Amino acid sequence: MKLYDYFRSSAAYRVRIGLNLKGLAYDAVPVHLVRDGGEHLKPEYRAINPSALIPALQDGGATITQSLAILEYLDEVHPLVPILPRDALGRARVRSLALAIACDIHPLNNLRVLRYLVKEAGLTEEAKTAWYVHWVREGFAALEAQLAASADTGRFCHGDMPTLADIVLVPQVFNAARFNVDMSAYPTMARIDAACRALPAFEAAHPAKQADAE
Amino acid sequence: MKLYDYFRSSAAYRVRIGLNLKGLAYDAVPVHLVRDGGEHLKPEYRAINPSALIPALQDGGATITQSLAILEYLDEVHPLVPILPRDALGRARVRSLALAIACDIHPLNNLRVLRYLVKEAGLTEEAKTAWYVHWVREGFAALEAQLAASADTGRFCHGDMPTLADIVLVPQVFNAARFNVDMSAYPTMARIDAACRALPAFEAAHPAKQADAE
Repeated sequence: MKLYDYFRSSAAYRVRIGLNLKGLAYDAVPVHLVRDGGEHLKPEYRAINPSALIPALQDGGATITQSLAILEYLDEVHPLVPILPRDALGRARVRSLALAIACDIHPLNNLRVLRYLVKEAGLTEEAKTAWYVHWVREGFAALEAQLAASADTGRFCHGDMPTLADIVLVPQVFNAARFNVDMSAYPTMARIDAACRALPAFEAAHPAKQADAE
Repeated sequence: MKLYDYFRSSAAYRVRIGLNLKGLAYDAVPVHLVRDGGEHLKPEYRAINPSALIPALQDGGATITQSLAILEYLDEVHPLVPILPRDALGRARVRSLALAIACDIHPLNNLRVLRYLVKEAGLTEEAKTAWYVHWVREGFAALEAQLAASADTGRFCHGDMPTLADIVLVPQVFNAARFNVDMSAYPTMARIDAACRALPAFEAAHPAKQADAE
């Protein structure tokens, strides 16, 4: 399998964790989001992924885009080391936690959006950071409340094995740390993040450990 | 089942379509996103959904949040009239198309974000509309390219039966129409949207048909 990757992309980081948890070998093809005006915007990459977003996974002749679709696919095709619980309600809870980050936080904070706010909408750096911190705090507070209140939360977001929810959580916490978001207000999330990062599969997926890390 | 609903919410609209396609009866509980400073922000609703977002589905004693998690749950628990294809690659494609809207377009365009841009970031109404149109155009162009290029696209986004991708597409096209986005640049999407809206399940889920419509 071939993963079109960028070390700092939260979405690519998710897929790297999933591949590692399942013990699946892959070739990382770095696509630089900044250099040269963004390699993802070139026709070569658009031919692979018309949305010009990272990551994309090639498996055999097929190309799969969108990190959560890739992770669901990997879980279906390589069911060993499952990343979703067995019961429908458990799966719903895990997917909901993952989507609470993937839909409600991350899309507002990624590079293209922050760039637009400064370059097109004319926001100052301070206003951009305020925007970032606002959505992270809003989302983290809701997530912390959900995790802290539920008996389903264990060592990880759902029970004592890592799931899709943890796979999405860790890159978002990493991302927030870059903006100096204080995690002490989110003790359950911080505890789960630490438990995940102690696992080799998460550690090997860390941005700093990638070949294209700067 | 009980659906915490708001007629104009794209995410709630998705779930209504899914419930209708599967022929599942539900009680809609309207939660007004504007009136009274937003009923979703009151402690009563936060007790149901800590993220204070619409929709939430109650089924038996369980509450499920996040529209895509709800739809996957419904498809698992009520597999008749499936909304995902049978093969893993087909499911990956459908999920990817759905996520391309649910993660890359809709989060940037929903009410709370547009409000923040005007009230907190100080954007003019024109700048807010430019933001909206920018992300819709960017996302729709990518989606149109993916749909138009694929032999898997049929009468609907994936083959000749509606799937999760169509369920997410139709509310986003409805949303874009409110901002006068010209659909002539996206002929495949416009054709699929029309095919969907001809189906009673989609029609009955339309915002204008809801009890709380204004």
